Amino acid sequence: MDTLAPATFDVARIRQDFPILSQPQARGRPLVFLDSGASAQKPRVVIDAMVRCMETAYANVHRGAYRLSELATNSYEAAREATARFINAVDAREIVFTRNSTEAMNLVAHGWGRGVMKPGQAVLISELEHHANIVPWQMLRDDKGNELRVCRITDSGELDLDDLEMKLADGKVGLVAIAHMSNVLGTVTPVERIVAMAHAHGAKVLLDGSQAAVHRRVDVQAIGCDFYCFTGHKLYGPTGIGVLWGKPEHLDRMPPMLGGGDMISYVTFEKSEWAPVPAKFEAGTPAIVEAVGLHAAIDYVTAIGMPAIEAHERSLVDHATSTLATVPGLTLLGAAQDRGGVFAFALDAAHPHDLATLLDRAGIAVRAGRHCAEPLHTRFGLENGTTRASFGLYTTREEIDILAQALTEAREFFR
Amino acid sequence: MDTLAPATFDVARIRQDFPILSQPQARGRPLVFLDSGASAQKPRVVIDAMVRCMETAYANVHRGAYRLSELATNSYEAAREATARFINAVDAREIVFTRNSTEAMNLVAHGWGRGVMKPGQAVLISELEHHANIVPWQMLRDDKGNELRVCRITDSGELDLDDLEMKLADGKVGLVAIAHMSNVLGTVTPVERIVAMAHAHGAKVLLDGSQAAVHRRVDVQAIGCDFYCFTGHKLYGPTGIGVLWGKPEHLDRMPPMLGGGDMISYVTFEKSEWAPVPAKFEAGTPAIVEAVGLHAAIDYVTAIGMPAIEAHERSLVDHATSTLATVPGLTLLGAAQDRGGVFAFALDAAHPHDLATLLDRAGIAVRAGRHCAEPLHTRFGLENGTTRASFGLYTTREEIDILAQALTEAREFFR
Repeated sequence: MDTLAPATFDVARIRQDFPILSQPQARGRPLVFLDSGASAQKPRVVIDAMVRCMETAYANVHRGAYRLSELATNSYEAAREATARFINAVDAREIVFTRNSTEAMNLVAHGWGRGVMKPGQAVLISELEHHANIVPWQMLRDDKGNELRVCRITDSGELDLDDLEMKLADGKVGLVAIAHMSNVLGTVTPVERIVAMAHAHGAKVLLDGSQAAVHRRVDVQAIGCDFYCFTGHKLYGPTGIGVLWGKPEHLDRMPPMLGGGDMISYVTFEKSEWAPVPAKFEAGTPAIVEAVGLHAAIDYVTAIGMPAIEAHERSLVDHATSTLATVPGLTLLGAAQDRGGVFAFALDAAHPHDLATLLDRAGIAVRAGRHCAEPLHTRFGLENGTTRASFGLYTTREEIDILAQALTEAREFFR
Repeated sequence: MDTLAPATFDVARIRQDFPILSQPQARGRPLVFLDSGASAQKPRVVIDAMVRCMETAYANVHRGAYRLSELATNSYEAAREATARFINAVDAREIVFTRNSTEAMNLVAHGWGRGVMKPGQAVLISELEHHANIVPWQMLRDDKGNELRVCRITDSGELDLDDLEMKLADGKVGLVAIAHMSNVLGTVTPVERIVAMAHAHGAKVLLDGSQAAVHRRVDVQAIGCDFYCFTGHKLYGPTGIGVLWGKPEHLDRMPPMLGGGDMISYVTFEKSEWAPVPAKFEAGTPAIVEAVGLHAAIDYVTAIGMPAIEAHERSLVDHATSTLATVPGLTLLGAAQDRGGVFAFALDAAHPHDLATLLDRAGIAVRAGRHCAEPLHTRFGLENGTTRASFGLYTTREEIDILAQALTEAREFFR
């Protein structure tokens, strides 16, 4: 059986795994949830794993000499192992659990930016970044003086690799921090190429995989990057848990951001010694139940198969591209060759929030605004933002048709 | 009906609210869970609230223009309101959600310590602190040069207020950071008095309420402190969520620790402007489901009544004090007049881990080690640590008897 074939992917069956999709909605309409890019819904297996942990095997981790605490510790560390396998990390100790990908990027901005990079070194981001991959580097610049460079994107929403090369050329860039997939344009960036270019100029590479890790098989060894960040709640897992993967030689050099219990080897009032990674970066009681939920989410998508999920999404992207093209007055933002299931658009002069509110009345959940990517919207002259539909593994072609139909009707409404 | 009377507190009925307490355990023994000081078990209502959120009302918060997102946002902000009421904060915007109390204290060490305090100002902690209230201040000292002073404790485990006064006297202390209740000694510190002394010398006060908020009614206005920290998972709530309360004039002055989405008003590549508190401190997708669970936990303990919980605990403390005194060879650490339900002890020369392992065979879950308070153990000459039993609202006098009996038998074993 070829798991790459979309035919093996039964979206109707998958939808039954998500309790919220069969909930009765206001006005009796079915829920058309097209906001998975902001946060995905949770399958039954994730909810059940969290409940089971709290009902049968809960205690604090790492410091207990009794059975329940050992069970909880084993579950927590098994989640780390599963996360490592999910992105093909060499070792589970390369996985640091954070609250979300935002904290993961801040952890690198703090530990690598403030602790390892020199003030003369620059950070290079791009015009398509989420605020989580902009603001931490601004804070580093304002605090330590590291220059912040911004790689241009093309009008079709792709990275301008000539500009990237030019901005790397003087060898002063210490870190390139780029999204693996844009949360607005859907653009999937050529990460292997970016890594090769950056490394050739002596720069390390952080990839913001918040969107990409949900839609594609991520292999950090094949990509060759230095840091990779993603988050549980977009991957059909719980809120309150995110992931920083880093090469161990980098993590070892980074000072911790937070001090407290579990991240030290010893403490006197004069001096404390840090524990080895990843404990060094996980001060205090971690998100134990959430790690268990993330593990269940990873097992869930792995069982379906990331290639099958990717193929399903590719078919959705093709369908959306052609279907949305038939909506009069609709302008799509971005037209990258390699893209995932995120479509931001403007409908004539309708305000994005008004449009989203109108779509909500038809039971369609989309997001309106600048999607935490204000500079990107400025770049395209869309200061009011856009309306955005984003897909999950439970999204159907029929839902895209419903969206297209509702947009067509909305245009009449706004006329 | 006098809610202060322990008679109104039906511990047998309360135990039925906690699914894990009726789980079959290894060797068929009932679970005697005496490690609530590390993390408490979760009542059915907390688990159900989290499940309901994920099954019926889940979406990302703050940025959606559709019904589900509004529901989720309302739930998340209702949790903030409930948390504010729980500690009698003036306004919900004084509540910042963090991962745990460790992060809450680090947030103050970062924002107040690095952002507001002057390098010439000292931080004053005490010998009874948890690492979470030691290491952040060491990191501040090593980074910015702020002196770190340590208030002595007496042999009975109480704060030496003469020493506190002496260490405040020169007016150079900018912040006093003290535990409201020790996680090892059970000592409840005289917080109103500490605040009066500190304020008289121009110092602000942070209280680590990780233990105290579980056992006592906390009223931040009555206490008069400047910052108060506690955590969800010890309060019968979820992991992955903690609380920083701060006076709004302090929070307003503090720079954020993490940059990203949701914590900014606007972003250009040149400059970003922070959102008002508390959003300024909550970068990225927050622990939405966990906030909902915390809300349920707060409602749960509030319905029972903090005075009733405190009275129940007082009766447990009295019972434990007299019962453990009958165990031959047992030495209790600390003997504070005002104390909560945490008992750390040594049994002759038995290693704490061996003792805890032996107790586990009898179905008794206790913790062994230095309980993230290494300097405190050094202070008492107990470098190997102690064994610790800590109580929750489901703890019974019979469980304390079982512990005492098991300790008596353990002594024979170790002879």
